Amino acid sequence: MKKYTIGIDVGGTKIAYGLFDEALNLLDKRVTKTNQASKPEEMLDDMSNVCKELLKSNGLTMEEVKGVGAGFPCHIDYENGYVITGSNLPTWKNVPVRQLFSERLGTRVEIDNDANVAALAEQKFGAGIGNKNMIYITVSTGIGGGIIINDAIFRGDYGAAGEIGHMIVSDFGYTCSCGNVGCLMASASGPKMIQYVLDQMKHGETSTIMDYVGEDEELSGKHIGIAAKDGDKLAQKAIERLGDGIGIMFVNLYQIFNIKHYVLGGSVSKLGKPLYERMNLKFAEFIRFAADYPIEIVPAKLGDDVGIVGAATLID
Amino acid sequence: MKKYTIGIDVGGTKIAYGLFDEALNLLDKRVTKTNQASKPEEMLDDMSNVCKELLKSNGLTMEEVKGVGAGFPCHIDYENGYVITGSNLPTWKNVPVRQLFSERLGTRVEIDNDANVAALAEQKFGAGIGNKNMIYITVSTGIGGGIIINDAIFRGDYGAAGEIGHMIVSDFGYTCSCGNVGCLMASASGPKMIQYVLDQMKHGETSTIMDYVGEDEELSGKHIGIAAKDGDKLAQKAIERLGDGIGIMFVNLYQIFNIKHYVLGGSVSKLGKPLYERMNLKFAEFIRFAADYPIEIVPAKLGDDVGIVGAATLID
Repeated sequence: MKKYTIGIDVGGTKIAYGLFDEALNLLDKRVTKTNQASKPEEMLDDMSNVCKELLKSNGLTMEEVKGVGAGFPCHIDYENGYVITGSNLPTWKNVPVRQLFSERLGTRVEIDNDANVAALAEQKFGAGIGNKNMIYITVSTGIGGGIIINDAIFRGDYGAAGEIGHMIVSDFGYTCSCGNVGCLMASASGPKMIQYVLDQMKHGETSTIMDYVGEDEELSGKHIGIAAKDGDKLAQKAIERLGDGIGIMFVNLYQIFNIKHYVLGGSVSKLGKPLYERMNLKFAEFIRFAADYPIEIVPAKLGDDVGIVGAATLID
Repeated sequence: MKKYTIGIDVGGTKIAYGLFDEALNLLDKRVTKTNQASKPEEMLDDMSNVCKELLKSNGLTMEEVKGVGAGFPCHIDYENGYVITGSNLPTWKNVPVRQLFSERLGTRVEIDNDANVAALAEQKFGAGIGNKNMIYITVSTGIGGGIIINDAIFRGDYGAAGEIGHMIVSDFGYTCSCGNVGCLMASASGPKMIQYVLDQMKHGETSTIMDYVGEDEELSGKHIGIAAKDGDKLAQKAIERLGDGIGIMFVNLYQIFNIKHYVLGGSVSKLGKPLYERMNLKFAEFIRFAADYPIEIVPAKLGDDVGIVGAATLID
């Protein structure tokens, strides 16, 4: 009787809900806006209401649901079901989400970090099928990681492993959203690539990049990608800098884990070939025996649904 | 009948051999010098002879030996039993040690990285007993790591996981023995602490450190430790710098693994309280929720025998 699952992908700007059958086929979907200012209890009320509506409009009741899985862009205490902190949900600190959400829904709830959830999805249904060991990395506003060891997410002792973006790779550099100086994601991320381009133009570097930006748009990674393809030197340099940063990330992951398979997701990874070439070059520069013991970095496959699919797999 | 084990600890300056009974009690021991210039085949000939002599003088034969385990200060392909590279054994490149050594000895051979071997020993018999997840780190000439996940050494896909000392933490700084710039062990290690002190004195900083060095001695970490205890400012600063580096290492390990338990070995860790205080301070500065989710860094317990004990545990 209990055979359906709901997977929720809580993002910094929107929340996606997927209704899945037993074989994890996606039956229906909802997307709402994230109100970053709302208190955890309020947001969980709203999320609970969306779940109930989603079921009702598919002629289902909560009694037919095995459970609800949710991925958060936060440090998570998986074992106890807490959101510890998260820069995209600034009011959420040590929130017992599993308990609060489960009370509202009247069903089993599991929560995890969004990168863990995406790693699970890519390893079960996407670009990482068959990889016993694998690291999923998402590069967009920040950098998150999900580590799969022996076919299971490795969460560490407190449930918050995989905070790859906060490893210190530099002794100066930009300050991270976490407050630290030198975090990987404080230099290698979409916003920092954009900031670099704007800074260079402010200091007099000429570039065609702004010609690609529509009147009601802001400069984004997409524009930089197109300008680079058309030969804009500043755009190319910005992608190279980002590629160097992500290349160093792979150097560190490889030195520590010696894992072969990596899946790269997130909006920044859509920069494609120029980014991949540069990061592979940087990797080969630092890991000189990589020819004999190569790594394989492949783009994520599941696209925008990765978060809801992965969240649904939290309920087994 | 086959109930004895030999554990070998191959170091950059000496090689230690331990003969163990079934309960892994140490029965007898040999120590020889490492000839870094000798070819792998020659060194394995010599090592094989020491093993045979060790057995003979204890009234034993190779038929009574379950196997010989050996830890090398090298990148190891554990699955295939190869030494890939090692800066302390410069002529060893892609050497099929397990096969070559096993042919010479006429018994089973297992090899692993020395830090993995030490991690196993500390987790089974030393400071890490009972830790399902644990990272052992040795800081001396360089930095090595052994990662224990779910009660087993995690070796990655190619058998060389745990090269913690070669993670990039700096965008400038000293060049590492591996040739890369920015490796953790290129700034946080015994030799670099000594180099810092010598450099500062050369640039005019006054210090009492050299008063602690005997006529036929060279400046070592031990002298810096004693001078610091007696109030020498430069010695204190040198230890603080090292503590900062090792603190950053723990920040990165914690962000990535979220593991609670760490065992710190190697000669540098003998600097004791001032080093531990400083690295814990650095850690708390970067990991602001550490009070709720603390780490425990404890000194290694097994001392000089850690390498031979761990190597023996490779034979189960």
